[in-house]
Amino acid sequence: MDTQYLENIESNVRTYSRSFPVIFDKAQGARIWDADGNEYLDFLAGAGTLNYGHNESDLQKALIDYIQSGGIVHGLDMWTDAKYQFFKTVEEILLKPRGLDYKIQLPGPTGTNAVEAAIRLARHATGRKNIITFTNGFHGVTMGALATTGNSKFRQAAELPAIGAQFMPYDGYLGEGVDTLDYLEKALTDSSSGLDKPAAVFFETVQGEGGINVASIEWMQRLERLCKAHDILMIVDDIQAGCGRTGKFFSFEHADIKPDIITNSKSISGFGLPFAMVLMRRDLDVWKAGEYNGTFRGFNFAMVTATAALKKYWSDDTFEKDIQRKGEIVKTRYQKLASLISDHGHPASERGRGLMRGLDVKTGEMADKITKRAFKKGLIIETCGHDGNVIKCLCSLTITGDELEKALDILEDSVKDALAA
Amino acid sequence: MDTQYLENIESNVRTYSRSFPVIFDKAQGARIWDADGNEYLDFLAGAGTLNYGHNESDLQKALIDYIQSGGIVHGLDMWTDAKYQFFKTVEEILLKPRGLDYKIQLPGPTGTNAVEAAIRLARHATGRKNIITFTNGFHGVTMGALATTGNSKFRQAAELPAIGAQFMPYDGYLGEGVDTLDYLEKALTDSSSGLDKPAAVFFETVQGEGGINVASIEWMQRLERLCKAHDILMIVDDIQAGCGRTGKFFSFEHADIKPDIITNSKSISGFGLPFAMVLMRRDLDVWKAGEYNGTFRGFNFAMVTATAALKKYWSDDTFEKDIQRKGEIVKTRYQKLASLISDHGHPASERGRGLMRGLDVKTGEMADKITKRAFKKGLIIETCGHDGNVIKCLCSLTITGDELEKALDILEDSVKDALAA
Amino acid sequence: MDTQYLENIESNVRTYSRSFPVIFDKAQGARIWDADGNEYLDFLAGAGTLNYGHNESDLQKALIDYIQSGGIVHGLDMWTDAKYQFFKTVEEILLKPRGLDYKIQLPGPTGTNAVEAAIRLARHATGRKNIITFTNGFHGVTMGALATTGNSKFRQAAELPAIGAQFMPYDGYLGEGVDTLDYLEKALTDSSSGLDKPAAVFFETVQGEGGINVASIEWMQRLERLCKAHDILMIVDDIQAGCGRTGKFFSFEHADIKPDIITNSKSISGFGLPFAMVLMRRDLDVWKAGEYNGTFRGFNFAMVTATAALKKYWSDDTFEKDIQRKGEIVKTRYQKLASLISDHGHPASERGRGLMRGLDVKTGEMADKITKRAFKKGLIIETCGHDGNVIKCLCSLTITGDELEKALDILEDSVKDALAA
Amino acid sequence: MDTQYLENIESNVRTYSRSFPVIFDKAQGARIWDADGNEYLDFLAGAGTLNYGHNESDLQKALIDYIQSGGIVHGLDMWTDAKYQFFKTVEEILLKPRGLDYKIQLPGPTGTNAVEAAIRLARHATGRKNIITFTNGFHGVTMGALATTGNSKFRQAAELPAIGAQFMPYDGYLGEGVDTLDYLEKALTDSSSGLDKPAAVFFETVQGEGGINVASIEWMQRLERLCKAHDILMIVDDIQAGCGRTGKFFSFEHADIKPDIITNSKSISGFGLPFAMVLMRRDLDVWKAGEYNGTFRGFNFAMVTATAALKKYWSDDTFEKDIQRKGEIVKTRYQKLASLISDHGHPASERGRGLMRGLDVKTGEMADKITKRAFKKGLIIETCGHDGNVIKCLCSLTITGDELEKALDILEDSVKDALAA
Repeated sequence: MDTQYLENIESNVRTYSRSFPVIFDKAQGARIWDADGNEYLDFLAGAGTLNYGHNESDLQKALIDYIQSGGIVHGLDMWTDAKYQFFKTVEEILLKPRGLDYKIQLPGPTGTNAVEAAIRLARHATGRKNIITFTNGFHGVTMGALATTGNSKFRQAAELPAIGAQFMPYDGYLGEGVDTLDYLEKALTDSSSGLDKPAAVFFETVQGEGGINVASIEWMQRLERLCKAHDILMIVDDIQAGCGRTGKFFSFEHADIKPDIITNSKSISGFGLPFAMVLMRRDLDVWKAGEYNGTFRGFNFAMVTATAALKKYWSDDTFEKDIQRKGEIVKTRYQKLASLISDHGHPASERGRGLMRGLDVKTGEMADKITKRAFKKGLIIETCGHDGNVIKCLCSLTITGDELEKALDILEDSVKDALAA
Repeated sequence: MDTQYLENIESNVRTYSRSFPVIFDKAQGARIWDADGNEYLDFLAGAGTLNYGHNESDLQKALIDYIQSGGIVHGLDMWTDAKYQFFKTVEEILLKPRGLDYKIQLPGPTGTNAVEAAIRLARHATGRKNIITFTNGFHGVTMGALATTGNSKFRQAAELPAIGAQFMPYDGYLGEGVDTLDYLEKALTDSSSGLDKPAAVFFETVQGEGGINVASIEWMQRLERLCKAHDILMIVDDIQAGCGRTGKFFSFEHADIKPDIITNSKSISGFGLPFAMVLMRRDLDVWKAGEYNGTFRGFNFAMVTATAALKKYWSDDTFEKDIQRKGEIVKTRYQKLASLISDHGHPASERGRGLMRGLDVKTGEMADKITKRAFKKGLIIETCGHDGNVIKCLCSLTITGDELEKALDILEDSVKDALAA
Repeated sequence: MDTQYLENIESNVRTYSRSFPVIFDKAQGARIWDADGNEYLDFLAGAGTLNYGHNESDLQKALIDYIQSGGIVHGLDMWTDAKYQFFKTVEEILLKPRGLDYKIQLPGPTGTNAVEAAIRLARHATGRKNIITFTNGFHGVTMGALATTGNSKFRQAAELPAIGAQFMPYDGYLGEGVDTLDYLEKALTDSSSGLDKPAAVFFETVQGEGGINVASIEWMQRLERLCKAHDILMIVDDIQAGCGRTGKFFSFEHADIKPDIITNSKSISGFGLPFAMVLMRRDLDVWKAGEYNGTFRGFNFAMVTATAALKKYWSDDTFEKDIQRKGEIVKTRYQKLASLISDHGHPASERGRGLMRGLDVKTGEMADKITKRAFKKGLIIETCGHDGNVIKCLCSLTITGDELEKALDILEDSVKDALAA
Repeated sequence: MDTQYLENIESNVRTYSRSFPVIFDKAQGARIWDADGNEYLDFLAGAGTLNYGHNESDLQKALIDYIQSGGIVHGLDMWTDAKYQFFKTVEEILLKPRGLDYKIQLPGPTGTNAVEAAIRLARHATGRKNIITFTNGFHGVTMGALATTGNSKFRQAAELPAIGAQFMPYDGYLGEGVDTLDYLEKALTDSSSGLDKPAAVFFETVQGEGGINVASIEWMQRLERLCKAHDILMIVDDIQAGCGRTGKFFSFEHADIKPDIITNSKSISGFGLPFAMVLMRRDLDVWKAGEYNGTFRGFNFAMVTATAALKKYWSDDTFEKDIQRKGEIVKTRYQKLASLISDHGHPASERGRGLMRGLDVKTGEMADKITKRAFKKGLIIETCGHDGNVIKCLCSLTITGDELEKALDILEDSVKDALAA
């Protein structure tokens, strides 16, 4: 594998090829192979983009059929049959059964496109400029989204200040026993707090990049009450936590709250294709024609696979239950690993919701020791959190029982090796 | 065709479905069909995204082969075989023969991702914040790109000021006989001009959305000299004008200039797939690992089709010459139409480079009259310019001679009908 | 008194003439008279600008002598004898005895000029953009200062976002038992907190406009440690709390901390003349010639009276002790009033440091009831706090014992009347 | 003179003490003396702040009388008798005779306070954010004003981008024969020009710091027509050019235009006291109580001297005519000097209006040579323009004929010396 060629020609900005310095060429389900034929179990799954695994066969078939039929690939935002089918399916399978009445915007095929559109719409609809975002939130790096993203790595590289958002502490940020919404509520009711009255609060129900930080049900419900009391919109960024990752299609269903605007991307196409969607409360659709645009708003391949994925996996609650069941398996094994590591004098803990789980080993150094060993043993697994201190599980939701056990066994071996090193 | 359903569920932000209110379902080459089987010639071609036409057969075959082989679809920014082939092909076919030595960044699959990355890199590399952009420039609508985009429609909808750029008049903006670079040069040499010393100038060699405004060779060469004299980077946004649209692969080749950074997107995949690329002078690659990211940086389908397209169309100069030849055909016919319209008391003119051509009929009202009639006659054609006053030709570069003549005939009929109305 | 004329010609922005709708024409010490000869005790004292009372006789004499001698009035920032004397006196009386080694900048004669200069210098010296400011902080309303000011009244009226600062909760903001610096420390050590590494923290030791909120000694000392640990500058805004108001010349002396930069204004001239000063750690003086300017940087009258005031009042600790003694008197009477009000079912409390004291009656409505009655009885006294809920004492520091008792008696009567109403 | 002490303790930001490194201590009319008794003629006059000279005797007398009467010095923005007299005098002497109906805001005593207030009011009244400002404009350095100031020296030192304004070329900026308003008009009528529809245009009729650039009458009248046609406010910054400097009280009177908002400062007090004023069309006064504030809005000394100055100098047109007459004298002599310098191979030219005149010697080096020599010969005179290439005449308007001739003789000698060097 001529990795040196790639090192030389690709910009230094590259990231994952540093952790996994091989050239991959095939993938199926939860498994991926490099050009030398080495097999890996994939616990990263496109950072949550491959919830149904690599090359899911029914989606692949739907896609090939569509291509062979001469269907439209790219149609700007024109109406196509694929779009019609997709919208119908979203309505029938996702919205109606949940009592949701949203309009749909396809804002461009990346998460950050959806974020820019969603927060701009919130500003447009309220006439206010400010967005409340939260510590450790990650929402993208284009300049509008960046204002809502906490990571200093991106913020510093921008050279310009990213404007339009103010940060508040996320649930749990100030430790046990501190309800961080006390600060938000105080600031909202105090006209000299420096908090500009926001258009919206914008948050992930489980923070992915931020370290698998889980907002409690009570915190989200109080946040919804605060929003209603102060006439502030609630936007849930469900780009990573959505599409079943937490055990429900929308991650906020656990809290029985109804966001005013929702951003989706990553796994919405189901097949790893670039795609994003903004759902908005019907009366918030104040957009005028063409006020937000982009060339790739209408990627029909993604609509074809998204439609197939929704029909296959979300027509009843079988898949939800299966995710929840597997989540419990990972939880139990991660807790066991946390105990094991703690017993060796490195305090560690487990957290998560559904199949979005993290093993917090407190330092990036320790986490790297473990994940490097795991890669050598055939497991692709990444870290997150402000110091890279949390070992993420973002395995495909369709992983088989055997694959899951094998992956967790590799992780356990890697932990043991790291502790012994 | 149940267009009412779509009207009801899709956000009001939708645009092209207002000009072409049908549901499309098939497309091939320069032709596209709606769900009732009506055929249209496509002079819009994904706003420059389908330079090789819809469903180009060799690209389609390469894509299906890749899918059936179980190749990686989505790999974040990991190394894959498809990326390796793509980078090699870019180097061998695009860079080396033109004496260019760039590094490659895949910044996310949309043009605006590439723009945000390119201008951020320019700021990062120079430590300066300001970007010079030009009247009627269009570079995307995420907040960083928006600062460089002139259209008030997008800027006003943002509610927040878009910061980080200053506008200068584009070539020809102040009429015949005014070299607009006089103002830029004066402002650069005058420390009290209000022009903050820029990191870069950022421009399209032919402005697409802005009205098919063509920068002259002399203007571009003087701009390059100004940049060098003042140690300012030059970024060419080749998202719409690149990939052969103007008769050369890179649109700046006509002027024999060498930009420091280039943005590409739209037709780079060749198949309408979301994809974008930033090329940067090797020494400007000051990115640190992960300072710019995004989920869909590594869309392998697009690399597969891009590789096939480059190999098929750009290995020699046959295709270039063909584009130039067809460009002359459109030019001649557009000039004839301009004369015809002018003869009826509506001053009109023609302009463009290669197959990126515009018929300026001075008012959006007249342009709409013509294009609406064209659509009814089976030609999809759009307008651009600040008032929608320019009828664009963005037909696929692979359009057949017969199709081209037929489309131009329809346009001529539509003009005549409009003039007679 | 023809107040209607003034109402008609002066902009609606006027404020104090709404609370005190008379025309004043004479003043002496703690007393002020309106054009009809009515006398008032002045517990507002120019919002802390008249610490030595109106028309202090020795300062008045020094000023008249200077005028009659033909001294320079306005000299841009040229060197004058008055400036020389002032700088010498600052050094001898203020800096040397306190072990402080600062350079002096006269940035223009208003507090907001000093604030803009101080925070810009901090950015310039560190190369960082962000300033940490605190809830309920007030630092002025020009756009740079506004970014550090919490009041939504000013922030909303600006239409533009005020950029360059982030807010943190001030001491006590989240109630008893919450050390608000926990959040700042967490955010500083967490690279994904959304807190951009600041150039400086910027705070008032006692917040004036914000409601006489008093930072505890421990809080300020911990803040200084945090700044040192993270290489962040500390700027104390001593515009209202300085010049002896809290019982020490510099308000931060109570905490035995040494700010890197200090802003002074309001009472620094001693006579109510527009004047402001920035003190900066010698090595932080990275300004180049003329990088910050303004026409009225060199108002020599103010330097003359400032010199006289420093010499008369601050050559030994007599004055300090007198302020502290009077502060205790006000404290005792305010506590008594708080008890009285609380006994009537309106929870009230007292707080402050030195002669900067507040009686918090929880609502602006109650505070207005009391101060309106006080004005009718001959006491000028204002409210502060986010809802105007705190009745301020900003009496001149030179007020006589009899005047002080009389003013407090009037206030007590007003409270009783208000409670009885 | 212990200038070394001052060098050591004063911040490096100091400017004028670099050109005139002596300690001044007395001044009268057009003359100023240093501490060693050396006399200088003052052609700088507080950069336009001392239009009536130093220590004008009637103003001095009015001030001393006021002080000795125990008048209010500082009264925040409360109503005082001095304010009443001032407002009446402004109305009777300035507004009514000119058919102007403005309301008055005293926004704090510096020009930059007035600028921040004026542009914020324009934004507030129109709901638009953008302000059109011009190349070489100087309007102050607090962050709001800085956005409208062209000098890179200040803009770079700010570290943050100054937002809220866009620059257009001032009259004459692009050389003879180019009407720079062509660009503004084009940009206003072109919705893709990148020019955000402005709240206001903001300009000096003669640019002081920018190099004594004189807007022609036609240019100003066309600008007014453009503003009316596009519903944009016109703000004239008359801080340096106002108060008679150009031969009329308001500098825009020459063009017979009526600005919507006017900023005044510098010479408005007449005595060098910090003071500023915003005049606004009555219906634009959308301020709510207290939306803009500042401690020193009500500096009564300045109102006392301002009232006396308006009454003495502006009750009839005698003074105007005298200024115009003297302006012609300076013009003639400056033209002669320009010829002289040009004859020596250094192209030079003269320009100005009234007693605001400049001798453009093309380079800062040449200008410095001349002004340094002048200072040694007893003339204080400064340079302006982007390279310090313009030798300004800002002599007091009350300068005697003899003093004026003497000063101009010194300047002529200095020019000759410089040319001979």
